Amino acid sequence: MLSFACDYSEGCHEKILQRLIETNLEQLPGYGEDHYCERAKEKIREACACPQAEVFLLAGGTQTNAVVISSMLKSYEGVVAAATGHVNAHEAGAIEHSGHKVLALPEHNGKIQAEELERYLRDFWQDENREHMVFPGMIYISHPTEYGTLYTKGELEHLSRICRAYHIPLYMDGARLGYGLMSAQTDVTLADVADICDVFYIGGTKVGALLGEAVVFTKKNMPPHFLTMAKQQGALLAKGRVLGIQFDTLFTDGLYFEISRHAIQMAQLLKEGFAQRGYRFLLESPTNQQFIVLENSEIQRLRRVVDFSFWEKVDENHAAVRFATSWATTPEDIQKLMELLDNR
Amino acid sequence: MLSFACDYSEGCHEKILQRLIETNLEQLPGYGEDHYCERAKEKIREACACPQAEVFLLAGGTQTNAVVISSMLKSYEGVVAAATGHVNAHEAGAIEHSGHKVLALPEHNGKIQAEELERYLRDFWQDENREHMVFPGMIYISHPTEYGTLYTKGELEHLSRICRAYHIPLYMDGARLGYGLMSAQTDVTLADVADICDVFYIGGTKVGALLGEAVVFTKKNMPPHFLTMAKQQGALLAKGRVLGIQFDTLFTDGLYFEISRHAIQMAQLLKEGFAQRGYRFLLESPTNQQFIVLENSEIQRLRRVVDFSFWEKVDENHAAVRFATSWATTPEDIQKLMELLDNR
Amino acid sequence: MLSFACDYSEGCHEKILQRLIETNLEQLPGYGEDHYCERAKEKIREACACPQAEVFLLAGGTQTNAVVISSMLKSYEGVVAAATGHVNAHEAGAIEHSGHKVLALPEHNGKIQAEELERYLRDFWQDENREHMVFPGMIYISHPTEYGTLYTKGELEHLSRICRAYHIPLYMDGARLGYGLMSAQTDVTLADVADICDVFYIGGTKVGALLGEAVVFTKKNMPPHFLTMAKQQGALLAKGRVLGIQFDTLFTDGLYFEISRHAIQMAQLLKEGFAQRGYRFLLESPTNQQFIVLENSEIQRLRRVVDFSFWEKVDENHAAVRFATSWATTPEDIQKLMELLDNR
Amino acid sequence: MLSFACDYSEGCHEKILQRLIETNLEQLPGYGEDHYCERAKEKIREACACPQAEVFLLAGGTQTNAVVISSMLKSYEGVVAAATGHVNAHEAGAIEHSGHKVLALPEHNGKIQAEELERYLRDFWQDENREHMVFPGMIYISHPTEYGTLYTKGELEHLSRICRAYHIPLYMDGARLGYGLMSAQTDVTLADVADICDVFYIGGTKVGALLGEAVVFTKKNMPPHFLTMAKQQGALLAKGRVLGIQFDTLFTDGLYFEISRHAIQMAQLLKEGFAQRGYRFLLESPTNQQFIVLENSEIQRLRRVVDFSFWEKVDENHAAVRFATSWATTPEDIQKLMELLDNR
Repeated sequence: MLSFACDYSEGCHEKILQRLIETNLEQLPGYGEDHYCERAKEKIREACACPQAEVFLLAGGTQTNAVVISSMLKSYEGVVAAATGHVNAHEAGAIEHSGHKVLALPEHNGKIQAEELERYLRDFWQDENREHMVFPGMIYISHPTEYGTLYTKGELEHLSRICRAYHIPLYMDGARLGYGLMSAQTDVTLADVADICDVFYIGGTKVGALLGEAVVFTKKNMPPHFLTMAKQQGALLAKGRVLGIQFDTLFTDGLYFEISRHAIQMAQLLKEGFAQRGYRFLLESPTNQQFIVLENSEIQRLRRVVDFSFWEKVDENHAAVRFATSWATTPEDIQKLMELLDNR
Repeated sequence: MLSFACDYSEGCHEKILQRLIETNLEQLPGYGEDHYCERAKEKIREACACPQAEVFLLAGGTQTNAVVISSMLKSYEGVVAAATGHVNAHEAGAIEHSGHKVLALPEHNGKIQAEELERYLRDFWQDENREHMVFPGMIYISHPTEYGTLYTKGELEHLSRICRAYHIPLYMDGARLGYGLMSAQTDVTLADVADICDVFYIGGTKVGALLGEAVVFTKKNMPPHFLTMAKQQGALLAKGRVLGIQFDTLFTDGLYFEISRHAIQMAQLLKEGFAQRGYRFLLESPTNQQFIVLENSEIQRLRRVVDFSFWEKVDENHAAVRFATSWATTPEDIQKLMELLDNR
Repeated sequence: MLSFACDYSEGCHEKILQRLIETNLEQLPGYGEDHYCERAKEKIREACACPQAEVFLLAGGTQTNAVVISSMLKSYEGVVAAATGHVNAHEAGAIEHSGHKVLALPEHNGKIQAEELERYLRDFWQDENREHMVFPGMIYISHPTEYGTLYTKGELEHLSRICRAYHIPLYMDGARLGYGLMSAQTDVTLADVADICDVFYIGGTKVGALLGEAVVFTKKNMPPHFLTMAKQQGALLAKGRVLGIQFDTLFTDGLYFEISRHAIQMAQLLKEGFAQRGYRFLLESPTNQQFIVLENSEIQRLRRVVDFSFWEKVDENHAAVRFATSWATTPEDIQKLMELLDNR
Repeated sequence: MLSFACDYSEGCHEKILQRLIETNLEQLPGYGEDHYCERAKEKIREACACPQAEVFLLAGGTQTNAVVISSMLKSYEGVVAAATGHVNAHEAGAIEHSGHKVLALPEHNGKIQAEELERYLRDFWQDENREHMVFPGMIYISHPTEYGTLYTKGELEHLSRICRAYHIPLYMDGARLGYGLMSAQTDVTLADVADICDVFYIGGTKVGALLGEAVVFTKKNMPPHFLTMAKQQGALLAKGRVLGIQFDTLFTDGLYFEISRHAIQMAQLLKEGFAQRGYRFLLESPTNQQFIVLENSEIQRLRRVVDFSFWEKVDENHAAVRFATSWATTPEDIQKLMELLDNR
């Protein structure tokens, strides 16, 4: 069955598979000390235009958020995030499991507002009782957000200025970073991200890899013994090569950007297709996730022939659903989807 | 350079790679709900002769130990293990990070002794102050141990009887389980393991997989919401297929056993080769890890031409080193090693 | 200086002091195994009309919340509370430190609404992705709330019905329980609390004791080895007598209720005094905490002669402040306060 | 019945009780911000001859160990202690609950040996695999130890030199510190302790207080926001005055030392009494805990008339028991005990 359920339905990009085949019997040191990991890191530093960046490869998004956040916070600190942020809503309490509170701010199409953040921080530091409260120790944003939306460069810079004023790091969850960077509506480059954020990760699992996320510390701020803390959280793969080879491939000849751009083009086709057919969107998403408001009865009908994700109830008769494209989506898939819509 | 440094130096068995290639573009549900995971679990149940077994696939050994142990213990309980047990010595405190103490017993070539375990448990339960102490809530053994040694079936049954008498589960870390089961000197089968242990895992990372460990709960005792607890610890892969396809392949036509047997045969050649040349062994290991006592000067010389692991200092002039074979070791590798020894 | 800053400004009730003196040199077993602890527990069971109640004495409120909540939740569960609940807002992240998320619901004068709770639970259990989220494992309410407000018996019963329907316990934080029970506007008795809640605590620190809170498990549901878990969290006093003697005294001849009623009478005088002078209240509080809205300039003036707590900003020119009475407040204190208001 | 079971059988010293009475109705700020706490801290600084010392008052020993250790360690670090150290053996896993491993060294009458410590640290830092292990981040010693023994000044200095060489703090658990300082066989003063250790605590609970331990950071090394971390662990009393008044009293006119010396004198009488009657000691203890080896049958007989603690089995027919004196022991108590021994 045709599926737009998510952007991790397939295995990996064929070039990655090819490299896994070619390198398979090489004997390499474990735990990320192999030369593929080194090369991947070097290429990521270049792609970020950030020669000083420290890169660490991990396996999945929730794992990455937990390891990064818990290793950077003091025990009396929490992480500030949008209420809809992945760390607050969909990680089974991984951050709290590591001992830290997620301090939720209101969300605006998945984003936090700089003004609200600033007010929150100012109020906290003026509160006479703050020693009895959780200190805000980091700002978490996802980009694209869980709603497919993007921060503008100006918004990111604003958040960053606030973070610096309060001496706390700005952390970007880039599970779908490629799809954000290749959006037609963004003014943010990977170099901007590296410049503006203190730490972020480049998502691999949803952008062409079998698994893998590349954490980038941009300000010589990787916590000492980060590897040990990753190990302690069960996040250190013995065969680190699996991650190294994949990211090495993704950052060779711009593959990561190329396949991300492709997904965006497919999303654009999908979006136009729905729009032309008069469908209503939950919100304007410039990336690979598109949120359509459908009648419940239509959801039932469509589900029989195409797979997509239920998102949220809108009213008694309508709900929003998500169609996601990815590096693996083909123009034929979009074509078939449109035919299904027309023949429903 | 020739390497016997560990059993995770290569990628994965070619049949696994082949299956990853064949299935790569199939669209599958995430988080282990795909049919490859289902099939892998079914085949593991069969291989274990344990139709009731509940199987869960995770990514790595330390992660598996932490998730299994912390999800089965009450907060006032710790896990009993040999002092040299992986959970006590080489996991960067992952168990303690999850809030639980490792209660270390003396080790005997890497194993715990049933009598000492029984005495420890009896003393604990007779101690008037036990409410101020950590309760023993689980027994952890590795098989093969970190020293390559194996429990006999009788020893495992003895440990199991003690565990049942004290109503605590027996957990086997099978990071190298295949190499244990295929040893010429064992009387323990996989069905025995499933019968005797309450929970164990079948190691993939060190036995032919890119990554992956299969946890088996044998007594309808998988903790409720185990998936959520795995997620909470960052241990749930979005593309669970990566694990499912690998274990499906490993348990098709006995591949897991076949490649384990091969490694054991290579270890036997290696062992005989060292023995014939008059080398001394740290201990008698019937599995794929062989521990040789070498003069420090010889270690220096050999290291220039072959890779192996430093294990432990024996005296001022000698140290034990480890040579490990694996599914990927070839007779030619052994041959070359012997030549290096002869030409040193 | 006259102080209405809080209800823990003084030491303890003189009868408690007297008992501490009388019993001082008795040699008693430690860790709560003395006969004063036993007597205190027996008297609390009687006062609760709950012969099956299991009582445990702890030292402070945040400690009690952390020990009770973390010992009753599974690791994949969080506790549902009003956004303004003490566990969410003013305990420095103690719950998260124990690994659990506080699942915040909207607050209505400090209370949660049964309908909103029910909708939240229903939505959670209907969510297809709930295995990736934190499970609601307990409902936390404070009574009186942080705003001095009270649940009606009907409201508590409604919450309890919902909890039972979803098989999760209802926990009441009774840091100021006495002041709630003795309010003129309540229809809730201590026996009602014991009947309706699964677990609650009777606050001592704010109601006449030097320190101490009495946790009451009402349904034979005290977690096994609760003492060990308390010890593990540093919450077990060697000289448990200090808590036993105090609660024994508080629950002898109704002292706890008598001194709570006194505080309520003082609060009533204070409230009427402010009202007669035309002051505006932030909300209607029927207990010992009264929240007055003052002009910022008046706050400055008053602070020079009387101590009270800043609560929250209302607008640019006004803020709410809190005046708290307690078991130790005298009619003369109220009289002096009124004179200060008149002569300001 | 006569009791030598422990040193926390009575309430508190009468002078403390007197001060609690005198100050009872003073209105004071909460959470340790009152002037009694300030005065207590100032007097402790003076007694330690350490003007720069930062002092924090907590409620109990296990709590203090957990808060101090967890707030000073990085998440990848553990605390090194003797196998018999209180943190390793008798705190229900409080340190592990906070996420950290206790790294146990062999004990010698309750003490760790500087040479063994040095070898352990050297081996750790030379281990190529140390990034996969728990880093030693602090040294914990108890003084007196759980066996009543004491470190010499030379031994403490040796430990301290090792700690400084490895840049880790030396922490002394002084639950019974007074009894150690007033021993006739010690050459260690409180000023020495403050000079040599990086952090230690002065036990109150076992030395005349109802409850309370005074943590002393001697090197301007109190972790930032220590109060918040204490709160987060449920260790911050609302009525901090209870601790402040007690330590203010204990450190007025040398009361702490005076009552400790008294306990030592009583222990000396007890020790001589046992020795004169030909009893065998488990080890030579120069402090208030004396360990006598008795026949099992005599233990049964004596237990009927005097209370003491079972310590450990010595052989089939003998066990060691503990007799503890304290600030509250009288010469008459010792006299009665001797009569019981003579008339048994």
